[in-house]
Amino acid sequence: MTDAAPGKVYLVGSGPGDPDLLTVKAKRLLEEADVVLHDKLPGPEIIGMIPEEKREDVGKRAGGEWTPQEYTNARLVELAEEGNTVVRLKGGDPTVFGRGGEELAHLADNGIPVEIVPGITSAIAGAEAAGIPVTHRDYTSSVSFVTGHEDPTKDESAVDWDALAATGGTLVVLMGVGKLPQYTEALRDAGMDPDTPVALIERATWPDQQVATGTLDTIVSVRDEAGIEPPAITVIGEVAGERERVVEFLEGY
Amino acid sequence: MTDAAPGKVYLVGSGPGDPDLLTVKAKRLLEEADVVLHDKLPGPEIIGMIPEEKREDVGKRAGGEWTPQEYTNARLVELAEEGNTVVRLKGGDPTVFGRGGEELAHLADNGIPVEIVPGITSAIAGAEAAGIPVTHRDYTSSVSFVTGHEDPTKDESAVDWDALAATGGTLVVLMGVGKLPQYTEALRDAGMDPDTPVALIERATWPDQQVATGTLDTIVSVRDEAGIEPPAITVIGEVAGERERVVEFLEGY
Repeated sequence: MTDAAPGKVYLVGSGPGDPDLLTVKAKRLLEEADVVLHDKLPGPEIIGMIPEEKREDVGKRAGGEWTPQEYTNARLVELAEEGNTVVRLKGGDPTVFGRGGEELAHLADNGIPVEIVPGITSAIAGAEAAGIPVTHRDYTSSVSFVTGHEDPTKDESAVDWDALAATGGTLVVLMGVGKLPQYTEALRDAGMDPDTPVALIERATWPDQQVATGTLDTIVSVRDEAGIEPPAITVIGEVAGERERVVEFLEGY
Repeated sequence: MTDAAPGKVYLVGSGPGDPDLLTVKAKRLLEEADVVLHDKLPGPEIIGMIPEEKREDVGKRAGGEWTPQEYTNARLVELAEEGNTVVRLKGGDPTVFGRGGEELAHLADNGIPVEIVPGITSAIAGAEAAGIPVTHRDYTSSVSFVTGHEDPTKDESAVDWDALAATGGTLVVLMGVGKLPQYTEALRDAGMDPDTPVALIERATWPDQQVATGTLDTIVSVRDEAGIEPPAITVIGEVAGERERVVEFLEGY
């Protein structure tokens, strides 16, 4: 710690991966920052835009272990106290399942000036890249984002799939490739129509984006046949059926 | 209609209003497009960036009436068939309650090449501008966006507030200033704790942004005392209480 005035930390969303979907502000901050703490989620194209001498990787370490959140929190405070302008770059948006909220609180608790720079979340951009509007007047008045990391068969699961099914709105599951069998079953058990359209979008907006579509009943086999792997989002709801209608004239990804 | 190859329509999100939160792609398209169809939602700063001779306002008309959606749909097709590169600029994100899904379908039905360019939704950026993370590991595993335009006391309301309350996740209501009394009551009736923190963010990221906070019980009086008016978002859930903890060191808006 020094006696100098502290620097500042920007919690910055990188968007889904296409550098063109960075915000004007995020792009400028990547150029101006003294240090950029990142993991692998922003994707190779965006990470490649950061000068190498400014990068600090706080994602997976050699040996396959994750850098503990406590290390990242402490490092952000340390760098700011040394007077640096620090960017904490996060995939998608910083507070949509990104632990940005925890970093925000830790920084404020330590008296570090902090600003959140929102990013395009893959939950929305991923659907749109596949020709799927997340809401639509004909089908849905709500859209819910939920993490697929939790096991819905566990009693202590914090995700209430019954309630989510009952909303009648679009559901977008982030990080939900592995537990797809469990939560599609939970949704069917909750009374959701097994013919509800479902789309999987892997590496949304990346050059190697993949889309696979099915229904609540068929999507697990579809996933296996298409070889869909993380990172991907799952879009569940009537809107997922819109892809069929528009894909012939859809451009972009 | 001409015999020339059709142009293309970009359905572009403008983000919440700060021009710095345009994506790199949106900014470039605003410069390169032949015509930009917009309404008032992108806000004066972003609309001011569009050369006046390219602008077509398809929002409120003289006399206070709205341009019918059918007119906008037909005009997009017409301009593209004349060979133009057309931007349909929408506040926030194009398919988060923006009728972008309808425009997308209409364009594809008419054989017009179309691309969606996602924008930062105020549902996320508005919360963050007020120091509120939309998800947080300590409080919530989901976040739901819902339109506040519908009257929850009507039988035909498409929004199931009981189910939304039961998710236990963060709720963000867009366009929900006017019906705030009705849906906060519906959520209390659904068993949501009346002390649940609630924040209203008006004109998120605009120079005259306003934030007001209360609880499910008090927020209607808070709205009236603070004079909160549309456009605004309502953030309901434990995460809204985080603002208190971080606001002293929060920068940006």
